[in-house]
Amino acid sequence: NRMQCCALEIEDIPAYTNGKKFQLDDVIEAQQFDRDTLNAIFEVAREMEKVEKKSPGSQILKDTIRTVEGYSDIIVMRHFESGAARRAAATADIPIINAGDGPGQHPTQALLDVYTIEREIGKLDGIRVGLVGDLANGRTVRSLAYLLAKYQDVKIYFVSPDVVKMKDDIKDYLTSRGVQWEESADLMEVASKCDVVYQTRIQRERFGERIDLYEEARGKYIVDKDVLKVMQKHAVVMHPLPRLDEITVDVDSDPRAAYFRQAKNGLYIRMALLKLLLVGW
Amino acid sequence: NRMQCCALEIEDIPAYTNGKKFQLDDVIEAQQFDRDTLNAIFEVAREMEKVEKKSPGSQILKDTIRTVEGYSDIIVMRHFESGAARRAAATADIPIINAGDGPGQHPTQALLDVYTIEREIGKLDGIRVGLVGDLANGRTVRSLAYLLAKYQDVKIYFVSPDVVKMKDDIKDYLTSRGVQWEESADLMEVASKCDVVYQTRIQRERFGERIDLYEEARGKYIVDKDVLKVMQKHAVVMHPLPRLDEITVDVDSDPRAAYFRQAKNGLYIRMALLKLLLVGW
Amino acid sequence: NRMQCCALEIEDIPAYTNGKKFQLDDVIEAQQFDRDTLNAIFEVAREMEKVEKKSPGSQILKDTIRTVEGYSDIIVMRHFESGAARRAAATADIPIINAGDGPGQHPTQALLDVYTIEREIGKLDGIRVGLVGDLANGRTVRSLAYLLAKYQDVKIYFVSPDVVKMKDDIKDYLTSRGVQWEESADLMEVASKCDVVYQTRIQRERFGERIDLYEEARGKYIVDKDVLKVMQKHAVVMHPLPRLDEITVDVDSDPRAAYFRQAKNGLYIRMALLKLLLVGW
Repeated sequence: NRMQCCALEIEDIPAYTNGKKFQLDDVIEAQQFDRDTLNAIFEVAREMEKVEKKSPGSQILKDTIRTVEGYSDIIVMRHFESGAARRAAATADIPIINAGDGPGQHPTQALLDVYTIEREIGKLDGIRVGLVGDLANGRTVRSLAYLLAKYQDVKIYFVSPDVVKMKDDIKDYLTSRGVQWEESADLMEVASKCDVVYQTRIQRERFGERIDLYEEARGKYIVDKDVLKVMQKHAVVMHPLPRLDEITVDVDSDPRAAYFRQAKNGLYIRMALLKLLLVGW
Repeated sequence: NRMQCCALEIEDIPAYTNGKKFQLDDVIEAQQFDRDTLNAIFEVAREMEKVEKKSPGSQILKDTIRTVEGYSDIIVMRHFESGAARRAAATADIPIINAGDGPGQHPTQALLDVYTIEREIGKLDGIRVGLVGDLANGRTVRSLAYLLAKYQDVKIYFVSPDVVKMKDDIKDYLTSRGVQWEESADLMEVASKCDVVYQTRIQRERFGERIDLYEEARGKYIVDKDVLKVMQKHAVVMHPLPRLDEITVDVDSDPRAAYFRQAKNGLYIRMALLKLLLVGW
Repeated sequence: NRMQCCALEIEDIPAYTNGKKFQLDDVIEAQQFDRDTLNAIFEVAREMEKVEKKSPGSQILKDTIRTVEGYSDIIVMRHFESGAARRAAATADIPIINAGDGPGQHPTQALLDVYTIEREIGKLDGIRVGLVGDLANGRTVRSLAYLLAKYQDVKIYFVSPDVVKMKDDIKDYLTSRGVQWEESADLMEVASKCDVVYQTRIQRERFGERIDLYEEARGKYIVDKDVLKVMQKHAVVMHPLPRLDEITVDVDSDPRAAYFRQAKNGLYIRMALLKLLLVGW
């Protein structure tokens, strides 16, 4: 049950694969086609979000899904409520991709993160990953922790302000899968041990009226030159972007700053995912 | 002068028709082409609406039309003022499609509604149609009533709260065309006699400050299981979507609930209309 | 160093040029291709503007550019800060097109304006141009004055309310290039001497809280039938559109009203620019 983003078998689609194994490179070459598809799909996603925001409620969501699936081959859905994509998938007869459901999950980000780790570090089994920042509301780190549990001998360090700690559902899942994890308040020590330091933004909108908690949380753990100094030569800094000031600018020029390469991988992974769902494997 | 959405003659466009009669199926097959065209066109329509909302007034509209027609082969226009599409068409040298002009008309919706009735009921001449809900501000029912007058021996029942009755311009037109119509306060009786029960949403924004009138109007005529019970076996429930609570959810699973099929027809009818105007017949 | 929009040499792109000189007509023929490209590009531009508005600041801009260039071949950027496109170009490894940077510059508009003057008047060397309206905040007239300085024996008249006079940076540049210019309060006299009367809109948003200054500025110099009467037979009225009331409607039917032809040229010039940057010359 190992996920392989970069070597899926594909058949009978001569225009794109010429009978060879499905490679990300083929997707990259076919960019023009897939980029149009992506644009059209995300347009639908944005429209749906607008509709949903006007009149939230699960019946409206069901109607929207049933209407949109009349025009579409696949639905990419971003939604402000945790669980909305799951509800949509229960209604739809076509594939639903969860492109972020509020503070819930962001699985396509996790796919590109895992792909980036494999490209940057050369392996996924046995890696040490530090997840830093808002772990309570950050859906990308929740999905990444979940996906890392599919690999062997992974260890995860959670480094976050007290008010935004990783929630129990993910911790329990990791434990049930035999994944080692621990919480730490010492970013320097974690950074010195990890293959990946995964920094995230503290998002003001997740705190509602509690500006005091937001101010308390942000700025506590910053990735800067001092953190780079203790990191190993082969290790990398990742970030889902956009960033505010949680990674200082002078980190950008270090070859271990992987976040812009990571962002670029997102295009290819999402193309691959769409192709997989639209044309099969 | 009978409108035929499904069998227009077309010639000399071998790529799409292979010398056969123009069929909706050909449009459906050619979806990729037309869907791109649709997207581009609706993008322009949305932009125009933004421009118009910023500085309404007929001179601005004329300038916008003259500017946009410099870039375009056709203009699809949604506008908040009744009559705006007609004014635009007087200015433009390219085709204008009215995609809804405030509380005025929504002719492409009427085309898809008529197409849906023909597919669902198998005929248009001789049908009985109940139009339900906000008939004063609902542009879709105004256009549908108008278009139904092109067929023979049609009877229309208007079922609406007193504050949002069908306006005299449409009633007078129907009378002048020899179309039978009557107003009724008894949804159950109308439903038992009709081939089509066409429900519409009561839109809050049409009432301005008069929330009291809105509250009075909505909820008065709901299509639910009890209405289904009195409807004939071959009859259908239609709705332009989105709905709020004017059709209860338990109606959806009845095969006579035609509204999601109706929505899907909208894509094909609009493709056909664009192709007709862009490549001729 | 003369700029030639209409006869750039291009080679080895047989699909579009058939081995001939690169002509705007070829771009026009290839519209479908380029229009898609344009749409995709402007979509990115709009998204970037949203991101920028949320959290302005030069670091955020750099991050955005580095992220977007991972997905793109070229970036067209509209921004609310003067100088933003220059900062972006310093960061990016791919071409940046400035599509308007606040009150700074709007170079693609200047390109289409110069192209329009050449088509309408038949020459650029030796022309007399009156720039009218908000010359302090109007980025289109700033860029046009700058670009006209590339031609020989040009004379520019600035006609504007006192509060929105042309700024010194452009005046100094014109002087340094040996371009004659003068300020005038007499629109009629300027109009009688010029080949081009270039009218611009007084934009309320450029005045912030100072509605009094806005009201003072607008309406001072209007292009109407009386202005047309003193203009020469071969001269033209231009405007970047949209207009409010600074050109009266009765001017539209005069063959010297060139502004809708000018708007249409914008599509072709931008296509040509994109093709030039994407496929070379």
